[in-house]
Order: sequence, then C-alpha cells, then structure tokens
Amino acid sequence: MSLGRADGSNPDGAPDASPEASSDVLGADLAGRLQAAVLAALPERHDDPDLERFYALLRDYPARGGKRLRGRFVVAATAAHGGDPERALRPAAALELFQNWVLVHDDIEDDSDERRGAPALHRQVGVPVALNVGDAMHVYMWALLLDLRGDPGFDADAIRAEFVRLIHRTAEGQHLDLTWVHEGRFAVGEADYLRMVTLKTSWYTVIGPLRLGAHTSGRTPDAGFEAHGARLGAAFQIRDDVLNLTPGATIGKEFAGDLYEGKRTLVLAHLFAHASRAEADEAIALLARPRSAKRPEDVARLLALIDRHGSLCHAQDVAEREAAAALAGLREVFAALPGRAAADALLAQLATLTQRSA
Amino acid sequence: MSLGRADGSNPDGAPDASPEASSDVLGADLAGRLQAAVLAALPERHDDPDLERFYALLRDYPARGGKRLRGRFVVAATAAHGGDPERALRPAAALELFQNWVLVHDDIEDDSDERRGAPALHRQVGVPVALNVGDAMHVYMWALLLDLRGDPGFDADAIRAEFVRLIHRTAEGQHLDLTWVHEGRFAVGEADYLRMVTLKTSWYTVIGPLRLGAHTSGRTPDAGFEAHGARLGAAFQIRDDVLNLTPGATIGKEFAGDLYEGKRTLVLAHLFAHASRAEADEAIALLARPRSAKRPEDVARLLALIDRHGSLCHAQDVAEREAAAALAGLREVFAALPGRAAADALLAQLATLTQRSA
Repeated sequence: MSLGRADGSNPDGAPDASPEASSDVLGADLAGRLQAAVLAALPERHDDPDLERFYALLRDYPARGGKRLRGRFVVAATAAHGGDPERALRPAAALELFQNWVLVHDDIEDDSDERRGAPALHRQVGVPVALNVGDAMHVYMWALLLDLRGDPGFDADAIRAEFVRLIHRTAEGQHLDLTWVHEGRFAVGEADYLRMVTLKTSWYTVIGPLRLGAHTSGRTPDAGFEAHGARLGAAFQIRDDVLNLTPGATIGKEFAGDLYEGKRTLVLAHLFAHASRAEADEAIALLARPRSAKRPEDVARLLALIDRHGSLCHAQDVAEREAAAALAGLREVFAALPGRAAADALLAQLATLTQRSA
Repeated sequence: MSLGRADGSNPDGAPDASPEASSDVLGADLAGRLQAAVLAALPERHDDPDLERFYALLRDYPARGGKRLRGRFVVAATAAHGGDPERALRPAAALELFQNWVLVHDDIEDDSDERRGAPALHRQVGVPVALNVGDAMHVYMWALLLDLRGDPGFDADAIRAEFVRLIHRTAEGQHLDLTWVHEGRFAVGEADYLRMVTLKTSWYTVIGPLRLGAHTSGRTPDAGFEAHGARLGAAFQIRDDVLNLTPGATIGKEFAGDLYEGKRTLVLAHLFAHASRAEADEAIALLARPRSAKRPEDVARLLALIDRHGSLCHAQDVAEREAAAALAGLREVFAALPGRAAADALLAQLATLTQRSA
C-alpha cells in the first residue's frame, strides 16, 4: 500500500526534526526513543553468522528511520486520556513494528524500488528471504505485545485485541487495493476508493492509535474515533497520493511510483470519471502495462491527462475537505478527555498528517 | 520449506483414513474436527463481495484437507500428559492454522506449482494477493490464541509463548534454507543440513506439539522433548526429501520439485560429498539454473548422479537411524507421563512420521 512510505518522509533517516516533534508529550526525542524501543524488541546477536545476518535484516527497516507518526500518536493519545505516556512506549513500538513488517511485505507486493531512500529489502536479498523476514518481524511484534502486563490503568488484553482488529482491517483494505490491480479493475469510484483507504490506512494510522491511547489509560475508546479517524486517514492517504504525483516532493518512494505500479488513487478515480472515452481507454492501456514495460513517456502522458482534468487539484481539495471535517469532529471528542493540553498537542500532530509538503 | 507439503499427503483432500488415525485419542474423525476448528477461527461472510472473496481465500488451504499431523500430535500429547484432549483442540487448530499460512508464504518463496493436489495460491491470484492472504491468516491464528483462557490445568500464556518460540525457530530455519538457495551456496554439509531442518521442521512438527501438550495440561515440558524431537523432525524432513525424489510417491507436490527449486537436501549433501569434481561442477551448474530454465533432462541427469552415488539410499538410512534413536529416547521420556495408553498411542503416531510411503 503506497501509504507505507508516508512514515518515511525523511529519506536520509535523520532524526525527525519536523515542527510537530516539539509538541510530543515525551519531548522532541520521542522518535528516537520509539526507534530504540522497536530495536529492543528485535534480536541482534547469534552464534550462527547466517542467523546473525538474518537478525540484521529484521532490524534493517526500523533502523532506516522514519517519522514514526503512528507510535507518536499512541503516546500522545495516552496522555490525552490521562494515562502514563511512558507506559505507552512499548505498545507504540509494537505499532511501529507492525508498520515495518507491513512495509517489507508491501514493497514485495508493489515491487517497489526503494524504501526510505534505500533499496527495498526484496531488491537487496530477493523476494523469498524478504518475505520470511517480514513474517519473523510480525512474530516479534506479537512477542512484544504478549509481554505486556495489564492493570486497571493499562488494559493489555484490549491493546492486543486492538492490534488484531487494526491488522484485520489493514489486510482487508490491502486486499481491495491489490485485487483491483490484479484484476485490472479500473472502474473504481471515489466511494470505493474511500472505503478501501479507510481499511488500508485509517485504521492503523489514526483510529487504532486513538483507541490504543484509551486502552493504555484503562479507558473505553470514544465511539467517534472511528468515523473521524476514517476521514482523517483517508485525507492522509489522498495527500500521500497527491505528493507522489508532485515533482520534487519525494517521500521515500520514486516520483509517480503509483502510476508505475498502476495503483488505484482518488486522482485516477477523478480522471476516469471526467476523461473522454478515448482518453480513458488510453489511460487504461498505459496503466495496465507491467511496471517493467512502462516508459517514462507513458507516465508523462498519464500526468498530462491528470493535469488536463484537474484531477490532482480535485484530490487535494477532497483531502483538505475530509481533513477539516475530521479534525473538527475530533476537536469535539477531545474536549471531553482529561488530558486537555495533551489532547491539544495530539490534535496539532494529527493536523500535520495532511499538511505535509514533502 | 518443502516439508510443508508433507501434511498434504492426500491430494484429494479426502478425510484422512491413514492407519494411525484409529489411534487418535479423540477418534478417527479428529482430522475432521481439527479442520472444523481451523475453519471456525477464520471469517466467512462479508457484505462486500470483494472481502467475502478475500475470506474465501483465507479458507482455501485449510479446506484442501491434509493429515493435520501436528494438530493431532498436540491433542495426543495433551492426553499423554493427563490433560483434557477436548481443550487441546483449539491450540491444535492454531498450530494447523500456522501450518496453513506458512504454506501460503512458503509456496511463494519456493514458487511451488501446486499444494495438496491443486495450484498453489499465488498461481491462482498472484503473489501480492497471496502474500497478503498469508499475513491475514497469521493474524487469525493469533486471534485464536489470544482468545484462550488459562487455569491451573491449561497454561494459556505458556501456549502463546510456545507459538512465539516455534515460529521464531521455523523462520530461522527457513532463512537458512532460503539464503543458501539465494546465495547459490552448495557447500552445505550434513551437519549444516541437520541444523537447518531442526529449526525449519522439528520445532513446529515435533518439539512444539510435545511441549504444547504439556502446557495444555498445566505441566512443564520434559527437557528431553527438544533433543529427541529435533532428531525425529529431521528424520521426517529427510524422509520427505527422499519421497520427493521417489517416482510415484507424489505427496502433494510435483516429483523432483526440490531439484527444480534447487533446495538443499541431505541427498545433495551426500552427493556433493562423494561426487567427482567434474560431477559436482555439473550438478551445481544444473541446480543453479532458474526453475524456468531447468529441463526434464537436466533433472534426469541429477537423478542419475544421485543414483550412481547411492545418495538417496544414504538419506533413507540416515532418516531411519535418526528416527530409531529419537523414538527410543521419547519412549523413555513418555514412560514418566501420567497418560500411559495415550503416550503409547502418541509414540505410534510419531513413528508413522518416517514410515510414510506416500
């Protein structure tokens, strides 16, 4: 899912220095502490050099950096619910670990060239080894979650159940995305697209983190998190799709990679809804080519059609509309939370999701 | 891992009617009850036809049948430890679910043609969709395990920890197997091979099920399970490798598929240890060809070399030697278990692991 790259907005993997970092409950170094917690959950040394190399592969993507947006949301949501942000670090690290193993598999599924400014893992070690690395990372995520001990202020069982739920939803959205590509289905409307990204992106990027923040505080998640989080996550994904088609706005993946991969996006949904029959047929013929058979001029032609119909601007407008509605709804819900200052900081962080310019 | 196919010995997916079935604690229909428990842990209906199709893909491999050896071992080991076999059904189903998601990913990693007599999942829906199906099945396995409630006679936490352990070991063995193929490393001796299959096969086929049988009875696993189980699992894998090179002994995967895949086996380890330099160079050149470039005559030539050096017979001898030593050790350990009749039945079932003729 092309969303994946969005957590790797700093290709150099440098410590996150984005403005919202300063609003982190645990300080600007939270990203670094999250990374440390993720790496601490992964093995490192083994007597067998082949297996020590295997362990190094498990640590590869986490070590590449990234903004760790979702982990930060979990920590901030915990403080907003009046919980102890320190205790939220490990569940937050588990969500980052989820993101990392999903990215390893996602890069295979999309046959992506790179991830966070370096070659995708399967480009380095081949699909079989990389696939198995992702499976092993998945199990280390569960090992971390199974290690959590609950008490009245920290509902470990609810945290684990939340991971089951958010991974189920992510895999369902991923299936829609992949099967539309596999079956060459281009007649995907805006409603279909929004339903897909809510599953693929919103659950593990917004809804899950907000609900986890309640569980890590021993509280019941507000029912509003789901509807508002769905819209904000969709806006985030749409913004991500827009950035991928915006020259110069590299975000850890090659420019127009979505067109090379033939991904369904809101941009294409708008294009097909407004293009002439001839244009649509041409666009489908270009998109349907296997990645290896797509030439730069094919992609340039698609970009020209997208530009002619203002599909990129439309997508940006929808992203802004959905984000505004979502943030207004979340502001109301957050008003009832005990950690007011933390809730305000969280809202500011969530707002940056769709304000990224790169 | 080529082992995978060994649980699918009845390509028609018919209810298991092998002799050892009658020795099952819960009766000859245990395989059917295990299948029902596996399918009960997977989703079936969804309003979205695309997602209902996704759910059908999750149920595909489990519905294809198979002997469910490992699940049966868990149930029998529970009775041997004096536990309630009925309570072992769900942990046993979780192990079968593990086997099934691993097979989906394994078939991608090995680019296998078929599984249990039908096309491999990625051959039906493509690698991206199949990979995601395996990930989703993995999470449903954890959902089933997280749902287990413990008590003094049923250590749910130890059961979950056992799954973490056996999946870690399986992934490590899988990495050795895959990385040797990926790096074209053919200088793999018998000791390397046995170390690899102990991780890849013994843990989830023998060691894990025996240890799970203790946890499902609220008891501590005997330390001997690991050493003896390692040898029996290796014997099972070697027997599986031998069968794959034995014409007419189809076991859910094409004849000589291991040679087409260039898998390291004890057969090849023996061949390279005894072949002339010229023969070894020729064998490596043939094995190193991509699957698509391997012609039947190439495989025939490899089989001729294997025959000339008696490598198949040697592998069979090692399998019998390891199995005999392992079963003798397990018989001693089992003598101390409370469920004597069940322990005898379990030993009989374990003995069949290396006696399969197809």
